[in-house]
Amino acid sequence: MSDQPERGFSEAEFAARTARAQKRMAQRGLAGLLLTTEADLRYFSGFHTLFWQSPTRPWFLFLPAEGKPVAVIPEIGAALMRRTWVEDIRTWNAPTPADDGISLLTELLAPLAGQGATIGIPKGHETHLRMPLGDYERLLASLPGLGVSDCTDLIRSLRMVKSEAEIARIAHVCAIVSSSFAKVPAIAREGQPLEDLFREFRRVMLGQGVDAVPYLVGGAGQGGYRDVISPPSRRPLQAGDVLMMDTGATWDGYFCDFDRNFAIGRADDLSRRAHDVLWRATEAGIEAARPGVTCRELFEAMRKVTARMDPDGSGVGRFGHGLGMQLTEWPSLAAFDETVIEEGMVLTLEPSLGYGEGRVMVHEENIVVRSGGAELLTTRAAPELPVIR
Amino acid sequence: MSDQPERGFSEAEFAARTARAQKRMAQRGLAGLLLTTEADLRYFSGFHTLFWQSPTRPWFLFLPAEGKPVAVIPEIGAALMRRTWVEDIRTWNAPTPADDGISLLTELLAPLAGQGATIGIPKGHETHLRMPLGDYERLLASLPGLGVSDCTDLIRSLRMVKSEAEIARIAHVCAIVSSSFAKVPAIAREGQPLEDLFREFRRVMLGQGVDAVPYLVGGAGQGGYRDVISPPSRRPLQAGDVLMMDTGATWDGYFCDFDRNFAIGRADDLSRRAHDVLWRATEAGIEAARPGVTCRELFEAMRKVTARMDPDGSGVGRFGHGLGMQLTEWPSLAAFDETVIEEGMVLTLEPSLGYGEGRVMVHEENIVVRSGGAELLTTRAAPELPVIR
Repeated sequence: MSDQPERGFSEAEFAARTARAQKRMAQRGLAGLLLTTEADLRYFSGFHTLFWQSPTRPWFLFLPAEGKPVAVIPEIGAALMRRTWVEDIRTWNAPTPADDGISLLTELLAPLAGQGATIGIPKGHETHLRMPLGDYERLLASLPGLGVSDCTDLIRSLRMVKSEAEIARIAHVCAIVSSSFAKVPAIAREGQPLEDLFREFRRVMLGQGVDAVPYLVGGAGQGGYRDVISPPSRRPLQAGDVLMMDTGATWDGYFCDFDRNFAIGRADDLSRRAHDVLWRATEAGIEAARPGVTCRELFEAMRKVTARMDPDGSGVGRFGHGLGMQLTEWPSLAAFDETVIEEGMVLTLEPSLGYGEGRVMVHEENIVVRSGGAELLTTRAAPELPVIR
Repeated sequence: MSDQPERGFSEAEFAARTARAQKRMAQRGLAGLLLTTEADLRYFSGFHTLFWQSPTRPWFLFLPAEGKPVAVIPEIGAALMRRTWVEDIRTWNAPTPADDGISLLTELLAPLAGQGATIGIPKGHETHLRMPLGDYERLLASLPGLGVSDCTDLIRSLRMVKSEAEIARIAHVCAIVSSSFAKVPAIAREGQPLEDLFREFRRVMLGQGVDAVPYLVGGAGQGGYRDVISPPSRRPLQAGDVLMMDTGATWDGYFCDFDRNFAIGRADDLSRRAHDVLWRATEAGIEAARPGVTCRELFEAMRKVTARMDPDGSGVGRFGHGLGMQLTEWPSLAAFDETVIEEGMVLTLEPSLGYGEGRVMVHEENIVVRSGGAELLTTRAAPELPVIR
């Protein structure tokens, strides 16, 4: 396993991220960005807490055209925010449904509204506004003259390309989970309810060093599974099952996202073939993932291989995506995405196919794109579907 | 530990929830509800998956004035949704940024827009819209004539009062985590980095039977901790520390949310006193939590006790909240909340206080309100601050 990186990021890293954002803001004439989600706040401030699990309180970070971000947050987060590089921290005693930060935001933004300035708010694909919609409508109504423009592309262009410090975190959690998957043959057995195996696998990942396991889904079924997003059932594993576990574990707030397939007792020919096709599709993806190619081209390099077994493309849609503070991030390895792959992007390669009667198989690795091509962050899956006996 | 309940809910339960919503919709003249969040979709459909961790795809459920809900969801969720009681399932091949469900929703809602009908969307406190804001704006623009009204109160009034099946789940996870906290003296020790203790405590909770641990925060410090929402540091536990762990673990998609305090090696007098005051404030809350009292009154019953040590109220704000599919739900035990407590509400009682120089202490139990008063779901904390030697 890789050496454990230091937790947290240097102030220089937050300053660089902010400077890059401000450069792009200047190009577009944006007077600031108003951010509301966990990942966006953490990206620019370093504010890192599981408290976001509570939907009760909104949190705001405003990136002005110049200078450090301004935090407008519930008082309960002030102590933690003071440990970040952010200096201007404005708090209120939340929850206060009648005014959950809205008057503080109005005060902050009124001078910009008075100038008829435009601010950016992420409104596009894979974003959402993490505050009550009614409060947002009231905020805009209190700021006549303020322009609001979608800044998804701006945030996307920054967050898609990872720093070395970010890559080190993802590499670390990928290494831990790779060694955890290596233990599955020792903990999975015929007769074991899937629910118990999933629970034990969570314990193994924690024991190996992940911080948390926000995501673990999968399935098992005779000659293949049919659904890839279900929680585990009490159904016992049976000889002839194909088992899949797909996990998003975290270390210092960064995700891995990959899966592994196993056959229980014996592997049927069709599932063995599906695994082989997906393994080779992933090889094609690893080979194709170089700076300068588009996401569509990378998708097509994998699709060309899966088409041999699944010409209609009855898998799960796209064949991978970005990975970082969220389990899935921009870009998409899909026919619609013309994003050009850049050095420093961390991606999942995730070809899938439909086969047999309604069965599906998925296969996934995590890579970082370097100048010379893809570098694997996961320990490559075995070429043949492993059989647990 | 309580016997493990069956997973999932009966179709009758979803039918009853839907009927109650439709009765309230009729009273308000709403032609439907458009829902976008995990908890709201699961409440009316039973659709239960960790796939919501991925922010890439929006999911929609429409509750019409009559009949079963209509699901408008990515194709990847169709197999799982077909296992629920929902029959009308409309899917698209997501992600498709150019049209992520918007034309399907437009088609569904156009007849209502044509009639000038009004639908409800949650826009209020503790809600958010889980879809790209730009898509929402486009959806409304494509449906001229459609009225949109905030339906937070409607959803809140339903979800605040739990069914026996919901209570059984919360009771089960509270029992598991109570027995896990009982093991803390055996796993925590001087010299142990807090990060390692937190990881081990996650493993203990899983070993005792929780499905997942989405939330575990806390702190430790000499003579008391100063922050209650941080992730754990590498700082080793020291004699004289007060340690607090606050956990939201889940079973079948329902949360517990409570904390426990421990002194390491020895307990200082001030922290012992703070613990005693909070324990007695919680007793006052347990005594006061009866149908018919308001949340404000319940808050004040606890506040009266903590005021002896913390007259200015420098704790963390409210003194508890609802609990269910989310770590924190309506109502709030706070001065602003005049909600009348009802039988079947599941609440956290969570008084806190500031003491010493910037130290804070929290204390928390989970209860269900019955006709005769509060019933504890957690194993009551010891009256005296426990010392781990």
